[in-house]
Amino acid sequence: MTYSFEQRGSLYSDSFRLYLTKDGQYISPFHDIPLYPDAGEGGLVLNMVVEVLRYTNAKMEINKELKLNPIKQDVKKGKMRFIANVFPNKGYPWNYGAFPQTWEDPKNVDQHTGFNGDNDPLDVCEISDIIPPAGSVIQVKVLGILAMIDEGETDWKVIAINTADPKISEYTNIQDVERMKPGLLKRTVEWFKYYKVPDGKPVNQFAFNEEFKDQQFAAEIVKHTHASWKSLIAKEVDNAGISLANTTIQLSSEKIPQEGAKELVSQQAPKSEASPLPATINDLFYVPTGI
Amino acid sequence: MTYSFEQRGSLYSDSFRLYLTKDGQYISPFHDIPLYPDAGEGGLVLNMVVEVLRYTNAKMEINKELKLNPIKQDVKKGKMRFIANVFPNKGYPWNYGAFPQTWEDPKNVDQHTGFNGDNDPLDVCEISDIIPPAGSVIQVKVLGILAMIDEGETDWKVIAINTADPKISEYTNIQDVERMKPGLLKRTVEWFKYYKVPDGKPVNQFAFNEEFKDQQFAAEIVKHTHASWKSLIAKEVDNAGISLANTTIQLSSEKIPQEGAKELVSQQAPKSEASPLPATINDLFYVPTGI
Repeated sequence: MTYSFEQRGSLYSDSFRLYLTKDGQYISPFHDIPLYPDAGEGGLVLNMVVEVLRYTNAKMEINKELKLNPIKQDVKKGKMRFIANVFPNKGYPWNYGAFPQTWEDPKNVDQHTGFNGDNDPLDVCEISDIIPPAGSVIQVKVLGILAMIDEGETDWKVIAINTADPKISEYTNIQDVERMKPGLLKRTVEWFKYYKVPDGKPVNQFAFNEEFKDQQFAAEIVKHTHASWKSLIAKEVDNAGISLANTTIQLSSEKIPQEGAKELVSQQAPKSEASPLPATINDLFYVPTGI
Repeated sequence: MTYSFEQRGSLYSDSFRLYLTKDGQYISPFHDIPLYPDAGEGGLVLNMVVEVLRYTNAKMEINKELKLNPIKQDVKKGKMRFIANVFPNKGYPWNYGAFPQTWEDPKNVDQHTGFNGDNDPLDVCEISDIIPPAGSVIQVKVLGILAMIDEGETDWKVIAINTADPKISEYTNIQDVERMKPGLLKRTVEWFKYYKVPDGKPVNQFAFNEEFKDQQFAAEIVKHTHASWKSLIAKEVDNAGISLANTTIQLSSEKIPQEGAKELVSQQAPKSEASPLPATINDLFYVPTGI
């Protein structure tokens, strides 16, 4: 099984799309990639779709509304969205992405946080030193989870590590992250707390006194969001604006033939030169003392 | 007066050279650029030669031994030198460079630290959000100074800000750095303390209990190192392996005509494609707890 991707449009512009493929066939990264790469469910090694690379700023994400859910840069108030550099970080502190076939149901009150889901796939912070290309599908080991509350919505952040990391055997649970990468978990909370403040948003909150839950806890959240996605793809719940178009799910009424997927991709703007980055791309935001 | 630069060789290889020019004429960035851009000496706005850009890793520096002192990547034990990413930083935390016409005399015991100079021009950390091209000559306002002791040598680090920074009027002394960029000074000390540890070197030490001295103190160190350079260029002291070749200093016996400078640059490898970065360029080094 070989995953790859194809670019359409111009990087850093509204025309940019990254369509994912499996063995040369177009797929939806939201629906067509199995969450559990091995046979059987409930394991701790999962497929992850890499959306944003460590040190970069462009807010790339699996687009929910577009058919086949290509990776696309988020647009806020008509402008391409670049997250600020929150001192002392340059861009994102880790590779960032999502677990396929997961969904934080906005109609579901999370039993741990008391807040509804954020209507997105489950987010992942991948902490290895390997930086794969955006659009990659990698296998990661789940290590723990942070319960972020973003403007009244539950937005879990899973901490995981690429199984290709040369020191993967050192990582068996969340405490190994602090042992191997001292300070990274604290920095992760700080980063999520403040990263929207430069854009005029409030600081984010966290359940569990800002503490990370362990691997077993994370695995339960993964299972729960996977179950929510199953209800979504089976149309048992409101799709909340999400395109369910897919190319491999036999029982789905939204499955489209590969010819239709090709036609759809061919209608997009052809791949072209990257658009210029904003002049503010290197500006550093310092958290005011006392915030 | 327009400063510019010309590349020879391949970036990230031993052939790379960045020769500086003033109004189209080759110069030495060590000797031919006035420390004080305005008439008169002793001011707080100085010329700075930018050697390394914020977020980058290649250890570029004014080469002391080569004629006309081009900017060149440092080589250690036969390998191109890239400084490690010290968590949570990517590369250098600020633009880094040197003050022209300054020298930390290795025969001179520094009266503040008790250690001899490190035989380099005075180093500068430039803290604005502007990232100019490497090889640029910019005007900076001196704000303070840190007394680093690197393996028994005095290696002062001046904190300064580009006068083109839109908020330059907010910066009048070292305490304004903490007010405007909370945490940056502490991070600067931490970075210098640990940045050579990944390469097997000991942690660096600092005089004055790791505290920054203010603008006036920094201005005195600038003056002192400028005086040392004057003794150097006048050959009143041992040149310690430093090429004194220059193209503009009338009283210098090492002044070479522009034709000779052109000849010298033309003998270098022509500009070519950048060499590949090492595979370890994104590896992050975490300071072990208890170090």
